[in-house]
Amino acid sequence: MSNLETSANVIWHNASVTRKRREEQNSHKGTILWFTGLSGSGKSSLAHAVEEQLHQRGCRTFVLDGDNVRHGLCSDLGFSVEDRVENIRRISEVAKLFLEAGVIVLTAFISPFRAERDTARKVVPHGDFLEIFCDSSIEVCEARDVKGLYKRARAGEIPEFTGISSPYEAPTSPELKVATGEDAIEHCVDQVLQLLAERGVLKSNA
Amino acid sequence: MSNLETSANVIWHNASVTRKRREEQNSHKGTILWFTGLSGSGKSSLAHAVEEQLHQRGCRTFVLDGDNVRHGLCSDLGFSVEDRVENIRRISEVAKLFLEAGVIVLTAFISPFRAERDTARKVVPHGDFLEIFCDSSIEVCEARDVKGLYKRARAGEIPEFTGISSPYEAPTSPELKVATGEDAIEHCVDQVLQLLAERGVLKSNA
Repeated sequence: MSNLETSANVIWHNASVTRKRREEQNSHKGTILWFTGLSGSGKSSLAHAVEEQLHQRGCRTFVLDGDNVRHGLCSDLGFSVEDRVENIRRISEVAKLFLEAGVIVLTAFISPFRAERDTARKVVPHGDFLEIFCDSSIEVCEARDVKGLYKRARAGEIPEFTGISSPYEAPTSPELKVATGEDAIEHCVDQVLQLLAERGVLKSNA
Repeated sequence: MSNLETSANVIWHNASVTRKRREEQNSHKGTILWFTGLSGSGKSSLAHAVEEQLHQRGCRTFVLDGDNVRHGLCSDLGFSVEDRVENIRRISEVAKLFLEAGVIVLTAFISPFRAERDTARKVVPHGDFLEIFCDSSIEVCEARDVKGLYKRARAGEIPEFTGISSPYEAPTSPELKVATGEDAIEHCVDQVLQLLAERGVLKSNA
């Protein structure tokens, strides 16, 4: 058999490392935790706090948020409705890749439109998309205003700012709703971990 | 302390799971193996064969190739030079995310232009981008023609086809050159694993 034939005979589809094999290696399932909520509602803080707990339990995790997406993959996109939709589309596709890698991927973006969240949900197999609504009143978010964005939005410096000049469409049936505006973050973290146990992502004794 | 203050006090940058912590968890370093070469040169076969070996050694890996990128993240892109450059740009940014996740990510794209490969290299820290030139003559690639693309390109059905009507700029100083057109794939796999050992990605006894 020539080398050429040897190479040609390697059908990678047979040899490929599947999601299932990765999940067995990881001792947990891959899933997408899709955090949605107003700016300042605590999505990113909660996602990273959940990730910390999962990492300590030996899970493979990754957080996608504005910090690592907006300056890289989506650096060519602005904040028009069209660009925001494309931003979410790319994020959902990247989340899908991490899912296939057997990772628990946590996305923390406002993702204000129901339609785009539903699109992101449909990109992956049923049950692999867990929508988590970070429910915090705009008054609380604006009072925090960690990044000073609400102040700028009120001053008219940021067009189409969610909650001020652009709508936020709250989820109608998220897998989980957490009261990030009122509850202690530790309690919210526990609720997310409980969801992961219920959905069989984590082994029951994890 | 109010709940609001509690949440505000969670500075995620301190709590975040870093690349270093993931690498310690994985017992290997993250890196990018960037396979480049003509269509049919064996990039994808080699990448998946390397991944199989790494997975069996307990490594966390992921292959990015046309199969999982072109239909998803880059489904809006065609094959014009402009779109191909954007395609590679997005892939390099996604590879960077997997790198930060502590994963050995293997990319298998023709990536014919030196400039775009250099751009991909510069996106990540020095030493984290290992360019692997799958060196196979166009005669061998065309004789294989697994996907029937050369036949279609010769018939003029595919404009700007690399090696036929669009240039392939061979790497001048890749980290590794493998003779995928001549050598057995097992030998090429060994060469890649050797490179990973030399670069400290794998522990010496892995």
